[in-house]
Amino acid sequence: MVIGGPKAAFFTDGRYTAQAKQEVKGCRIFISRKSALAAAAEWLAKNRRKLAARGQCRIGVEGEHLTLAERQRIAGILGSGFRLKPAPALVEQARMIKDEEEVDGLRQAEQLGSKLFDTVLKAIRPGVRETEVAAELEYAARRAGVDGMSFETIIASGDRSALPHGRASQATIPASGFVVCDFGVILAGYCSDMTRTVHVGRAGNEARSLYQAVREAQQAAVDAVRPGASVGEVDQAARKLLQKKGFGRYFSHSTGHGVGLEIHELPRLAARQPEVLELGMVITIEPGAYIPGKWGVRIEDMVVVTQTGCENLSGVSKELIEI
Amino acid sequence: MVIGGPKAAFFTDGRYTAQAKQEVKGCRIFISRKSALAAAAEWLAKNRRKLAARGQCRIGVEGEHLTLAERQRIAGILGSGFRLKPAPALVEQARMIKDEEEVDGLRQAEQLGSKLFDTVLKAIRPGVRETEVAAELEYAARRAGVDGMSFETIIASGDRSALPHGRASQATIPASGFVVCDFGVILAGYCSDMTRTVHVGRAGNEARSLYQAVREAQQAAVDAVRPGASVGEVDQAARKLLQKKGFGRYFSHSTGHGVGLEIHELPRLAARQPEVLELGMVITIEPGAYIPGKWGVRIEDMVVVTQTGCENLSGVSKELIEI
Repeated sequence: MVIGGPKAAFFTDGRYTAQAKQEVKGCRIFISRKSALAAAAEWLAKNRRKLAARGQCRIGVEGEHLTLAERQRIAGILGSGFRLKPAPALVEQARMIKDEEEVDGLRQAEQLGSKLFDTVLKAIRPGVRETEVAAELEYAARRAGVDGMSFETIIASGDRSALPHGRASQATIPASGFVVCDFGVILAGYCSDMTRTVHVGRAGNEARSLYQAVREAQQAAVDAVRPGASVGEVDQAARKLLQKKGFGRYFSHSTGHGVGLEIHELPRLAARQPEVLELGMVITIEPGAYIPGKWGVRIEDMVVVTQTGCENLSGVSKELIEI
Repeated sequence: MVIGGPKAAFFTDGRYTAQAKQEVKGCRIFISRKSALAAAAEWLAKNRRKLAARGQCRIGVEGEHLTLAERQRIAGILGSGFRLKPAPALVEQARMIKDEEEVDGLRQAEQLGSKLFDTVLKAIRPGVRETEVAAELEYAARRAGVDGMSFETIIASGDRSALPHGRASQATIPASGFVVCDFGVILAGYCSDMTRTVHVGRAGNEARSLYQAVREAQQAAVDAVRPGASVGEVDQAARKLLQKKGFGRYFSHSTGHGVGLEIHELPRLAARQPEVLELGMVITIEPGAYIPGKWGVRIEDMVVVTQTGCENLSGVSKELIEI
């Protein structure tokens, strides 16, 4: 899409002729036999004089998305007289704050996700493959009308629970141990994201104290969410608690991220990040602790920043469930 | 990953500590608290003197993957004395030719995909949502042990069959009309890809002649596959046939693509592409014709280039099926 002329111009190829007419509003639509990027560059080159008169020969490009090879191809078509410059993350920053309609879309997605957790609970039992649990979940999600899953479903059981990104594998669920369940649906374009960790069999004291530490850390971070809090503060709230309980070094990722039309949006909840929380941001709060080769626990909610703190969009209890 | 020292170096972050040890072979593994890219750049900067002595201060980067922003971040860490240069598509080109083990992996994936088409056929009936058909397919796939789907399942019925990329929507399957079913599974890392178009209700003469034209075009392209044929020739074989039948302008995409660990690999089967087919390439052959607002047909097989032509990995009949 090229923005900046009297009317934005949208480029696509023949595969999307019908779809573009249905879905793209407020733009001139150009269907090209070439790639959309090449078509946009040719259109810019052709309109050079008109654009230059308006002083628009400097083109801002999305630096986080455009590859070096794409830049080279565009530059080759544009020729001299154009300057390509990475623009600030305008879209990403605009997207951080969700309006009411968007919050509602995210709320509905997360509510559906919460409801689907029942399906996960019913599917988890010793001897069942992790992928079978994912199959039941994704089947129920599809039947409930989702566009798809927000990301590859994570069902990580036994010592695989120590893999923070342990997507469902052929491993079978053991007779005893943690199962980390991290999943999300895309409902009417908006992503949900939640994690619960359950225990198969009776949890011993060591397992309980790990679970309890993560749960308290997660609650501390949720409690730290309010307009004006820095993302680093929220991250620190979870981290401090896990450190106090002796699990600090097992918390190997950031505390959360924005979520919306994409599963990972700004802000990132980590130390040394610039953002300050604002009304209408929707973020995940998902600390975890992972003891390599042994086990791991993660608990995640999706919350929206409100005037007084936050509203938790996830409707599922965080009591330790033993299956 | 940095290749070029005495031993390749692999960088990742704490989320993948356990997984990297399990899965990465023949590399030194570095776990960093920062992003993998920043860690790699810092390692390069630290080892500068050693590298420079070997004349390795020019770093080839993957231009098709590295974004402008990532390049900026690396360059900032490296400082002067390093030159970053887009390298040729070494990995992509090496991957074009599949060895026997890889062909076998792709064969098994495509065989499973072919088997799953029965599930699709059983699910398609008037009044059922497209997403429900996708749900049945993906559930069966998951239960059969796939890692996931190769891409978002396309179930495009009625006038939506005219959308070449009409992924399964909430639309219900009409009492009469085409349904384009394009899907693939990832089995043990390898992607399958196939398309069949079926007709709900009795197909009239007009529908039959469109189907027949696409079928013949697809066969013509399959017949053109042999070592030494240019990808443009194969594309042209399908295109010429559709032109002869009067559907040329409704064939709005390329004839196919390589497939392997990723769903879209080189070569691309289109006019003006440089590649010549070689033994061991695995490609899709998938011409289609789409009449906007009305209907569309696509038929796709996955084939491996053999000494004498090709082996069709898809085991599903291309006779028009009426449901």
